[in-house]
Amino acid sequence: MTDYKFEGWLGHSPESVKGQMKWGEFEPKTWTEEDIDIKVTHCGICGSDLHMLRSGWGPTDYPCCVGHEIVGTVVRVGKNVTQHKLGDRVGVGAQGRSCMLSDCPDCSVNQESYCKRANINTYGSTYPEGGKGFGGYATYHRANQHFAIQIPEGLKSEYAAPLMCGGITVYSPLKNHGCGPGKSVGIVGVGGLGHFAVLFARALGADKVVGISRREAKRAEVLKLGADSYIATEEEEDWATKHAHSLDLIVSTVSNTNMPLEQYLSLIKTNGTFVQVGAPDNGVLPPINAFTLLSAAVKVTGSAIGPPRQIKEMLEFAVEKNIVPWAQTRPLADANQAIVDMDAGKARYRYVLVNENHL
Amino acid sequence: MTDYKFEGWLGHSPESVKGQMKWGEFEPKTWTEEDIDIKVTHCGICGSDLHMLRSGWGPTDYPCCVGHEIVGTVVRVGKNVTQHKLGDRVGVGAQGRSCMLSDCPDCSVNQESYCKRANINTYGSTYPEGGKGFGGYATYHRANQHFAIQIPEGLKSEYAAPLMCGGITVYSPLKNHGCGPGKSVGIVGVGGLGHFAVLFARALGADKVVGISRREAKRAEVLKLGADSYIATEEEEDWATKHAHSLDLIVSTVSNTNMPLEQYLSLIKTNGTFVQVGAPDNGVLPPINAFTLLSAAVKVTGSAIGPPRQIKEMLEFAVEKNIVPWAQTRPLADANQAIVDMDAGKARYRYVLVNENHL
Repeated sequence: MTDYKFEGWLGHSPESVKGQMKWGEFEPKTWTEEDIDIKVTHCGICGSDLHMLRSGWGPTDYPCCVGHEIVGTVVRVGKNVTQHKLGDRVGVGAQGRSCMLSDCPDCSVNQESYCKRANINTYGSTYPEGGKGFGGYATYHRANQHFAIQIPEGLKSEYAAPLMCGGITVYSPLKNHGCGPGKSVGIVGVGGLGHFAVLFARALGADKVVGISRREAKRAEVLKLGADSYIATEEEEDWATKHAHSLDLIVSTVSNTNMPLEQYLSLIKTNGTFVQVGAPDNGVLPPINAFTLLSAAVKVTGSAIGPPRQIKEMLEFAVEKNIVPWAQTRPLADANQAIVDMDAGKARYRYVLVNENHL
Repeated sequence: MTDYKFEGWLGHSPESVKGQMKWGEFEPKTWTEEDIDIKVTHCGICGSDLHMLRSGWGPTDYPCCVGHEIVGTVVRVGKNVTQHKLGDRVGVGAQGRSCMLSDCPDCSVNQESYCKRANINTYGSTYPEGGKGFGGYATYHRANQHFAIQIPEGLKSEYAAPLMCGGITVYSPLKNHGCGPGKSVGIVGVGGLGHFAVLFARALGADKVVGISRREAKRAEVLKLGADSYIATEEEEDWATKHAHSLDLIVSTVSNTNMPLEQYLSLIKTNGTFVQVGAPDNGVLPPINAFTLLSAAVKVTGSAIGPPRQIKEMLEFAVEKNIVPWAQTRPLADANQAIVDMDAGKARYRYVLVNENHL
């Protein structure tokens, strides 16, 4: 029994994404002695939240409370919890838990985000121990200790929150695919994820960071974020030919099923890599021609968030490199307006809901 | 001027693939002092030959003489030739030349097969120095010294010939993507290329080599080649589920535009790689779902033959490991019947044309 209530913004239908979430109480996932309860102070708004509210990735099990860029204070710890204590500041990202078994080919080597046995989302999934996951547009959140990460001192909660999903989603592929000195890196789509990607690619020491988006209008902002150059694919003529085979690595944050994928791939040098992190509705990607793959040995791959160990590493890296996300705080009370604004593409580049009562 | 004639089997129309090549004289590419002339003794029959004869990769510039698995004896050397001398036994593969310039991002790092400036096929392309390339179903062949490779002693010419294209096309991706101890490797399609892939994957020390083809009927032969197990995709129920995430690497030699690509990808472990080496007509591949890439960070890539340095390495490796291709010799005089048999899928697994007059 707890002396606090789990309450939050609940979606009851696909209409909820239009600013029609309702405040209400919910029953968190079943408590286990590996769990902690967190008094939520901050929660970033992620594109996934909108997809889930509108049933974009298949029918959502309503009611749902979204939000998986959660930061708050530990207010309860299970008997078996070793990683956190009451009063700690922790963050929770998009993954609620994995199988965590020592014979799992993924969990046993610290790649929990690829666990194929029990890959449980922070919200929307049903947990093996029982109960449904509810997200962080809420007063409290219950999490497995292994998937709650200590926030290092020196990192503001409003920055830490959006790093938990938006940040790690791009940090992980940049790191795993060798972004660093000597490399030219392109970032396709400079929105919430893409702005983190530009910041991290710069901080990781890439020789050249190229922002790639549709409209010329974004150029100044993207250069201000730290990009060396910018390609406006809908306004620069022959951009694919002009910049052919100029990049070692591209991280694509867009989820448009009509993206000019073949042209993006033509930007990549021999043996270079294209990593898709945006997830289009139904997963539909434009076709890829075999000759594109054969002629430059380009690798096309994907990346899904990142494992706890890498989230820790990223948070420390963010402190060390003084990464400052462009995050705008919004009161938790105004969550409905915030998701409407997010859906309209107004965020520059991430909204973070703040519960003033919990600060 | 030469005291020998360049003559060979010429295709004059797409009908030529039906056994209607005509014997005739041709003018080889313009001589340069970096060239050698080769008296051809052996030439393997490659799937590319059939594609080219039938205009399968776009309209062919007839007349064409195909064949890019050439072995023979050096009978003329240019003044600037340092790598070969009269009487040497050499092989020529699918690449006739590249730009070979020191500022080329590909040629300068020994990946000539990905040169984007002047990637000239042994036959069918026009050479920068003038003239069209003609292949090895012929009496003589003219080649740039850098793309003619010394055949090591101890390797029979009838084995060396099909290694020049069929062998390197699979050796290169196996080597580049880490085939070796500790790895489980799948070979999709066990025909000419696939049979080399099974032989090489075994010789490179993979823990497990899995042949993947449509029909159960091939199982015994594939195991005899050295595979540990076999999947008959059209006859084994639920094969993709049963073998899900069991392979580190797949080399796909098939070029069927309806291949079950998504199911192949589901066989791959987290961070594993799928390499396409077969080139479907028009390059059309089945669609790839973004979630397949995201959920296991699978890399989808391609590989095109291999550079001269790696061909040398492969030939030495073949001697060291006593690789014995399943090659069947056919008289050069019977080339028309041999390509008809090849097209009918009768080769087990590679036909090699032999010019008895040149032995």
